[in-house]
Amino acid sequence: MLTSSVVNTYPLSSYTFGTKEPKMEKDTSVADRLARMKVNYMKEGMRTSVEAILLVQEHNHPHILLLQIGNTFCKLPGGRLKPGENEIDGLKRKLSSKLAANSSTVQPDWQIGECVAVWWRPNFETIMYPYCPPHITKPKECKKLYVVHLSEREYFAVPKNLKLLAVPLFELYDNVQRYGPVISTIPQQLSRFQFNMIHP
Amino acid sequence: MLTSSVVNTYPLSSYTFGTKEPKMEKDTSVADRLARMKVNYMKEGMRTSVEAILLVQEHNHPHILLLQIGNTFCKLPGGRLKPGENEIDGLKRKLSSKLAANSSTVQPDWQIGECVAVWWRPNFETIMYPYCPPHITKPKECKKLYVVHLSEREYFAVPKNLKLLAVPLFELYDNVQRYGPVISTIPQQLSRFQFNMIHP
Repeated sequence: MLTSSVVNTYPLSSYTFGTKEPKMEKDTSVADRLARMKVNYMKEGMRTSVEAILLVQEHNHPHILLLQIGNTFCKLPGGRLKPGENEIDGLKRKLSSKLAANSSTVQPDWQIGECVAVWWRPNFETIMYPYCPPHITKPKECKKLYVVHLSEREYFAVPKNLKLLAVPLFELYDNVQRYGPVISTIPQQLSRFQFNMIHP
Repeated sequence: MLTSSVVNTYPLSSYTFGTKEPKMEKDTSVADRLARMKVNYMKEGMRTSVEAILLVQEHNHPHILLLQIGNTFCKLPGGRLKPGENEIDGLKRKLSSKLAANSSTVQPDWQIGECVAVWWRPNFETIMYPYCPPHITKPKECKKLYVVHLSEREYFAVPKNLKLLAVPLFELYDNVQRYGPVISTIPQQLSRFQFNMIHP
């Protein structure tokens, strides 16, 4: 029987932030994105993507690190697996590509923890569900969210075209308009965890 | 690293249902309920309640068993722990009281599984959050939801004033108007599980 898992959370001030070269979005519109998804599906089959929930604390309340593109759209760090790539290895690769310095000497040792959510895209459309809907035998994407356990100190290099934000759970909760269905229900998916707030 | 947990789900037709004497609600209004909560809080401190997610399948899609009171309000089977009572023991006691025959010979062997959600009530009000809000040092209630792993066969005795419904995840999802914030986000909280649909 699994009761609760513990996540150590350190203050935002424990971490240092720098910048690196921009990581441009591959698509400039939702339509482009869905078209590229279709092309890739024809070549490689169902897309599997992995995303990370990185937690810090401020005033003893958990905050999640989100990458902001432009002034509105926020996303979790992560991305698409290569065909056949292991989820854990792929998430580490994506985290390093999005958030680590390019020099290989200071790569964070990403501790990939619990899978907390799985979302399915039944069609080449934006809508996703937290289950594979009945009668859908060939879903187009499966997206998995993992808790990543951060060390007490870490250096993040943020691509220049993005902003890294620490957003409190109370801001995400019940805020589907601003954060979308996947990110706005992270507070519910983390509710079973015990947060061990560390004040170094 | 915990990836996914497996839940065996059996067809609804595997289970048999009977009735037993009514279990009346202790309160006839929300105001009564909150007033009783306050009285109990003064005597015993924070209320801890435990609720069960019982899963069955129909057409290979997971369904959750909900108790319906009257024609609209639905709730999960469960209830309040006695002061000092262990969560697992308390949930077994509540499940037997709500869903088992009164004869002690056929008590189901409730297999309490993973805690999937924890909700907090900061004040003597209906609103709850999936975290203890900042600055709340004395929450009034903590409600925990557990997956309960059903056996292949089971007999449920449903109190005569209640109906037991098997509601599909796709009906609960994004349906806060009908099921409230706790029950309508169960699909997201279960998304990390692998459902092993068994066809006996």
